[in-house]
Amino acid sequence: MRYRREELRFNGWGRRDKTFDLKGRDQEVWAFVSEALGLRELPHTPAVSLESLPLPPVALAEDALAALRQLLDPEHVETDPFERAMHAVGRSYYDLVRIRRGELPGAPDAVVYPGSHDEVLAVLRWASDHRVAVVPYGGGSSVVGGVEATRGGEQSGLVSLDTTRMDALIELDEVSHTATLQAGIYGPALEDALQARGFTLGHYPQSFEFSTLGGWIAARGAGQQSNRYGNAAKFLVAARLATPTGELSTKPFPASAAGPDLNAWIAGSEGTLGVITEATVKVHPVAEARDFVSFLFRDWESGALAVRRIVQSELPVATLRLSDVEETRFFGAFRSVLKPSRFQDTAQKALSLGGFDRPCVLMVGVEGPATQVGMARRSVLMTCTRTGGLFVGRGPGNSWYENRFEMPYLRDPLMDHGVGVDTLETSTTWGNLHTLYDAVTGALRGAMEARGHRGIVMAHISHSYLAGASLYFTYIFPRDQGDEIGQWRSLKEAASGAISTHGGTISHHHGVGIDHAHWLEPEKGPLALGMIEAAKQRVDPAGILNPGKLLPPR
Amino acid sequence: MRYRREELRFNGWGRRDKTFDLKGRDQEVWAFVSEALGLRELPHTPAVSLESLPLPPVALAEDALAALRQLLDPEHVETDPFERAMHAVGRSYYDLVRIRRGELPGAPDAVVYPGSHDEVLAVLRWASDHRVAVVPYGGGSSVVGGVEATRGGEQSGLVSLDTTRMDALIELDEVSHTATLQAGIYGPALEDALQARGFTLGHYPQSFEFSTLGGWIAARGAGQQSNRYGNAAKFLVAARLATPTGELSTKPFPASAAGPDLNAWIAGSEGTLGVITEATVKVHPVAEARDFVSFLFRDWESGALAVRRIVQSELPVATLRLSDVEETRFFGAFRSVLKPSRFQDTAQKALSLGGFDRPCVLMVGVEGPATQVGMARRSVLMTCTRTGGLFVGRGPGNSWYENRFEMPYLRDPLMDHGVGVDTLETSTTWGNLHTLYDAVTGALRGAMEARGHRGIVMAHISHSYLAGASLYFTYIFPRDQGDEIGQWRSLKEAASGAISTHGGTISHHHGVGIDHAHWLEPEKGPLALGMIEAAKQRVDPAGILNPGKLLPPR
Repeated sequence: MRYRREELRFNGWGRRDKTFDLKGRDQEVWAFVSEALGLRELPHTPAVSLESLPLPPVALAEDALAALRQLLDPEHVETDPFERAMHAVGRSYYDLVRIRRGELPGAPDAVVYPGSHDEVLAVLRWASDHRVAVVPYGGGSSVVGGVEATRGGEQSGLVSLDTTRMDALIELDEVSHTATLQAGIYGPALEDALQARGFTLGHYPQSFEFSTLGGWIAARGAGQQSNRYGNAAKFLVAARLATPTGELSTKPFPASAAGPDLNAWIAGSEGTLGVITEATVKVHPVAEARDFVSFLFRDWESGALAVRRIVQSELPVATLRLSDVEETRFFGAFRSVLKPSRFQDTAQKALSLGGFDRPCVLMVGVEGPATQVGMARRSVLMTCTRTGGLFVGRGPGNSWYENRFEMPYLRDPLMDHGVGVDTLETSTTWGNLHTLYDAVTGALRGAMEARGHRGIVMAHISHSYLAGASLYFTYIFPRDQGDEIGQWRSLKEAASGAISTHGGTISHHHGVGIDHAHWLEPEKGPLALGMIEAAKQRVDPAGILNPGKLLPPR
Repeated sequence: MRYRREELRFNGWGRRDKTFDLKGRDQEVWAFVSEALGLRELPHTPAVSLESLPLPPVALAEDALAALRQLLDPEHVETDPFERAMHAVGRSYYDLVRIRRGELPGAPDAVVYPGSHDEVLAVLRWASDHRVAVVPYGGGSSVVGGVEATRGGEQSGLVSLDTTRMDALIELDEVSHTATLQAGIYGPALEDALQARGFTLGHYPQSFEFSTLGGWIAARGAGQQSNRYGNAAKFLVAARLATPTGELSTKPFPASAAGPDLNAWIAGSEGTLGVITEATVKVHPVAEARDFVSFLFRDWESGALAVRRIVQSELPVATLRLSDVEETRFFGAFRSVLKPSRFQDTAQKALSLGGFDRPCVLMVGVEGPATQVGMARRSVLMTCTRTGGLFVGRGPGNSWYENRFEMPYLRDPLMDHGVGVDTLETSTTWGNLHTLYDAVTGALRGAMEARGHRGIVMAHISHSYLAGASLYFTYIFPRDQGDEIGQWRSLKEAASGAISTHGGTISHHHGVGIDHAHWLEPEKGPLALGMIEAAKQRVDPAGILNPGKLLPPR
């Protein structure tokens, strides 16, 4: 296990000994945020402490807990308030709002830490026999309610099944470029193990430090270098799951025409089919060379065109990240507050003269064999220049790359100051990209205005494909202290509705969980949903696995 | 519809007005084949004519046929012997043996040609209500029994549903690089329509001329340039199916984390979930440049190493085709019979001196933007040279490329001369490639020897991936006139058993059909099979869709 649990926040991001570094400019930062949100001052909104957090009583009877302690070592069955709180919800804005207010929707009666596939099987069989809900839990970083401790009336209790004791590299096949690992391994431990042998998975989601291989697969995650290394559905070669009815596993074929691809059911199953205990994944030799170049574009459309041209000409790039005008402006301003520069105004004026007064920044990461990196960089430079891009060097890209796992730490201090930050994401075809972008940003702004709030809505493209791209929206707003939940819901539903009616998928890489479950039927249709339900019922007839997630309650 | 049905062979490959060109050297060719198989002379084994082909009586009552004629135009409901024979089986060696002997396992009672998604829906609803089996049929080129007219006892009749009237290009999205087509379109018509607008799907299976988009997807096909253009599961963006319980469709997202990927259930569903009526696929600008270079290797192992190095260094190649010693030798000899050369012996001697006395040929096709083609060719040349390859120019590759759709035409005259030719294929990881190769070639040779036959067993790699590659086996043998079916089965089962026990998938791109159905449970496991069955039952509760295919009868 990578982290001792007590080192982590039960109600915020990451390690307790770490906070976002405001570089001693706290006052300036809060003044900047408050001005951006049109507020005179920011309120003080601390979270309730663990001691004051009301947890529901443990619903499992003592003999049930004894049975679990029989299946696992007693020390791997936890019932203390810290463990129960830590495993009660994921790490979405909605989760933080609730846990910080002391309004938990529920909490596991126990948290179990099985150490092997067979122990998971035993827990699931027991739970199935006793109608106890099981919520599979890896890093717990879900932002869609995927690990929330909720159960239906049919279940007599709920156990959170934490996979993080299962974190071994089982086999690295240096010939086939595949690695088989236990699925509870955290990102850093996984990369340490692989890189020590010269390989990488190359999967770096923003949650990298606090999420696990099994979670990435279960939620179909995508990392920041997915253009090169693929999302979880693509890097998955084979999986082993424990289910209430036994083992479900796929074999490591590079490709197969032997019927439907079970890996594509497992990726995205979100703990409803079973607990992923092992996975075989594609790995790559650690990149020989890496480069990160950035460009400014005069507007979002020309930036998006450059991204499309690069990806459709099948250049081997790893990262293509285009921020819209608002995101470029906001983070630019935020950085200048943290680190003021004397030349900033001059640079701004010079850019304005070139028509770059409201620019969009594009960061392009290239990695791989040195010859390919060189070739790709030259082609990228040419493509960007031809679509109106201005090369601005390596600074923005390198700075983003170095700090890319820090941003989640900023949310907690914002939460302490009455500020809400939420994100959501989607994908669509290139032909529909701008329609969807306009619809979602418009819906979010409209929902804010409806409550009389000024907020910031910004977006970027971070994953691109031959046929289209993802859109990632971040929105920052003053929290409606009287109705935080209602405010969250109105923003979320406005954006989700716009996504659903304007040709987007309800999630590109966050998953479905609880928050998107009612959007799944409009997206997949009742027949497809019926097929997913039927397949789930075959492996989990008692319906104990992650109830209420993925599939909407009927 | 691309072809008038009467232009096609009902019991052989392709167009009736076309035969394999033996270049006037028929006698030499047959002498070569007979010597290769250790026979003194080849027997004369003609096929039974349509008139002599015993077809079962039409089981559907006249009112049922009248109902079908009500749903479709009467002219699109066929019951004549030619249509029934044409749609009775696919185009495997086993199919040809049976239809040529006049031993059909069954035949459709009627062949229907719906013209639209709604007409397919209507036929399926009617068939579901009346328990009539429906076999979806595109080009009919299945080599695993995927379109065979078989039904269970529960069904009162069988209709072959021919999709080839549905062959329109519905929309080409030049921004998103996607095309939406009706699924009954044949390969050449599809490429004509796309290339007229500057795009290509790039999917060229050997059956290209006589197979359809819907069939490629249903059977998870892979084309000869799949390294660049992907197999059917990869190029599929969205699909529309008619099922007995209504429409099942997916949306054209470039990627999504909204639960399991339905496209991966549809690809490989082999007509058991519904009839694919439309599909949206990824297309590419027609390649600006193309090159085809060939190399000789001293042995299979060093050739395979070169293929692995090329694909694992992620060079943008389209085709990597490595023949083993036997295949290189056999086709080399066959070509010299067709077109003798005075320099052949001299060349052979020169090669022997360099250690290339039993070489393997590797053909590498590169296509795409000119700069990428140039870069890839240089890297390929370097990689092949470093692994012991000898550059032998563009001749072998270009010659193969030009004749790549001709080989299936050679099978019919071989069948007329008492010779059997069958193929099967699999894939596995690089680390297991040679083990599997040895096991399958050994099993096939053993099964031949067990019947006292001398035969030829050869193989090639034609599809390669980061994690592994396909293996394609061709075997040629004197037919056991007294027990052709038993002989086929013993060869097929020996090879399939070796595949199943030595880490291969039962099919890389031919599919499952009837012939591999009993190998699916060992490959996927009972739980996975149960999930597939449960999902199928949800959309096809009466079990009328392609009975006996994919899923083994219970």
